[in-house]
Amino acid sequence: MRYELYYQPSIQGRGEFIRLPLEDSGADYVDIARDPKFGRPGIMKFLEDPSLEHPPFAPPFLKAGKLLISQTANILQFLAPRLDLVPKSEASRLWAHQLQLTIADWLYETGQTHHPIANVLYYEEQTAEAKKRAANFTSNRMPKFLGYFEKILKRNSKGGDFAFGKKVSYVDLSLFQMIEGLRYAFPKTMAKLEPQYPRLIALHDRIKARPRIAAYLSSPRRLPFNQQDIFRHYPELEE
Amino acid sequence: MRYELYYQPSIQGRGEFIRLPLEDSGADYVDIARDPKFGRPGIMKFLEDPSLEHPPFAPPFLKAGKLLISQTANILQFLAPRLDLVPKSEASRLWAHQLQLTIADWLYETGQTHHPIANVLYYEEQTAEAKKRAANFTSNRMPKFLGYFEKILKRNSKGGDFAFGKKVSYVDLSLFQMIEGLRYAFPKTMAKLEPQYPRLIALHDRIKARPRIAAYLSSPRRLPFNQQDIFRHYPELEE
Repeated sequence: MRYELYYQPSIQGRGEFIRLPLEDSGADYVDIARDPKFGRPGIMKFLEDPSLEHPPFAPPFLKAGKLLISQTANILQFLAPRLDLVPKSEASRLWAHQLQLTIADWLYETGQTHHPIANVLYYEEQTAEAKKRAANFTSNRMPKFLGYFEKILKRNSKGGDFAFGKKVSYVDLSLFQMIEGLRYAFPKTMAKLEPQYPRLIALHDRIKARPRIAAYLSSPRRLPFNQQDIFRHYPELEE
Repeated sequence: MRYELYYQPSIQGRGEFIRLPLEDSGADYVDIARDPKFGRPGIMKFLEDPSLEHPPFAPPFLKAGKLLISQTANILQFLAPRLDLVPKSEASRLWAHQLQLTIADWLYETGQTHHPIANVLYYEEQTAEAKKRAANFTSNRMPKFLGYFEKILKRNSKGGDFAFGKKVSYVDLSLFQMIEGLRYAFPKTMAKLEPQYPRLIALHDRIKARPRIAAYLSSPRRLPFNQQDIFRHYPELEE
C-alpha cells in the first residue's frame, strides 16, 4: 500500500506526527505537497472538490486506497496497526489513542502561545497577549504535561524502553517530536525543566538514534523548524 | 454492563457529550460525581491512585468493566458500537471519529473565548483578551465550523435525517449539544447565523424531540448551563 500524505509543504506542523511513523517503519508513502509531481494544488483539489464524500476540515489528511482520513490522532490510530506501531489488544489501542489525544491537546496549547487571540492575525498583532499566555504555559502547563508523561513512562514501560514496554509505538515517536519542538521553541525553559523528566529525555534520545529516524532527520525530507510552524522561537516569550 | 462516568458534578462540560449517548440509548450508567453514594472523592481516588496503570490526564473518564478510558472522543468511539450509535464498517467509524475530533476542536475554541490566557486565572483577569478572542470566534470560527457541518449533513445524509443517513449516531448528539451551548453562550450571534444552516438546526430539533433525550432534558439529571461551564454567556463578548 502506498500512502499519500497531504499537508503543508514548508512546516513540520501536525504532519510531522504522521511522517515520523511512516519513516520509522519504512512505509511506502508520498508527501504530496512536497512532491514536484503533485504540489499544492493536490491539497486544494481535495479541500474544494464538491463531490468529495468525506471532506476534511483541515490538513493533514491521508489517502490509503479508497479511504481519505483526517485529524492527526485519527490518522495515527488507523496507520499504527498497519505499521506495527501499537500492540494488538483493544485496551492497548484505546490507551495509545488516549495518550495521543493528550499530546494533541499539548501541541494545540503550544501553538496558542504565539497566537492566543486568532490564527488569522499576525503574531505581531498579539504579542502582548502571547507573553501572558506563554508565561502560564511555561510555568504551569509544560510541567503538567511533562510530569504526566514522565509518570506514564514510569508506570507502563515494564522495565522496557518505551511507553508500551519493549516495543516502540507511535506514542513514543510523538513524544520525541514534542521534546524536539519544545526545545526549539522554549530552550531556556526546557534546559531548566529537563532534569526532572529523565525518562522522557531518555526516550527522546532513544528515538533519535533509531536508524531510520536518524536517516530521516539528516535528510532533506526533515524540514527545519521555522517561524511559520506550530513550534516557534520568540525569545521574548520566555522572559 | 453498567458504565461508570467520572466527571465534574456541577457542569455539563465535556461530560455531557458522554451523557447524551448513554441517555439516548437507555444505557445502564452511574454519573459517579453526582451520585451521593460516590461523589467527588470517587474521582480524586482515580486521579491520585499511584497503582493506577492508565491514569487519565483529566476528566471525563469512563469505567467499563476493567477498562478505564479517558479523552471524550476516545470514550465515544469505544461506547458508540456498544450503544448502536455508529455504523459497523471501519470506514464509517473513522469518519465518525474524525467528525467528533473536529467537534472537540470547536468545543475547545469555544471555551478559549472566555479564557484566552490561562484556565487557572479568573475570567475577570482576562476580559480584555477574551473580547478580542470572542470577536474572532463569532465572526470567523463559528461560521467556519457551522458551515463545515452543514456541508457534511448535505453530502452525507443520503436523504435521511442524520449525519449517517437514516440512523442516529453519536456525532448527531454532539452536534445537538454544540448548537444548544452556542445558543446559550452567543445568543445574538446564533440568531443571526442560524438561518444559513438549516440542516444543522433541523438536526438539533430532531435530536431534542427524541423521547429519551426529551425526558433527559426535562429531568434533574440535565444540569443547567452556568457560568462555570465551557459554554458561558458574557454579553460583553458579543458586542
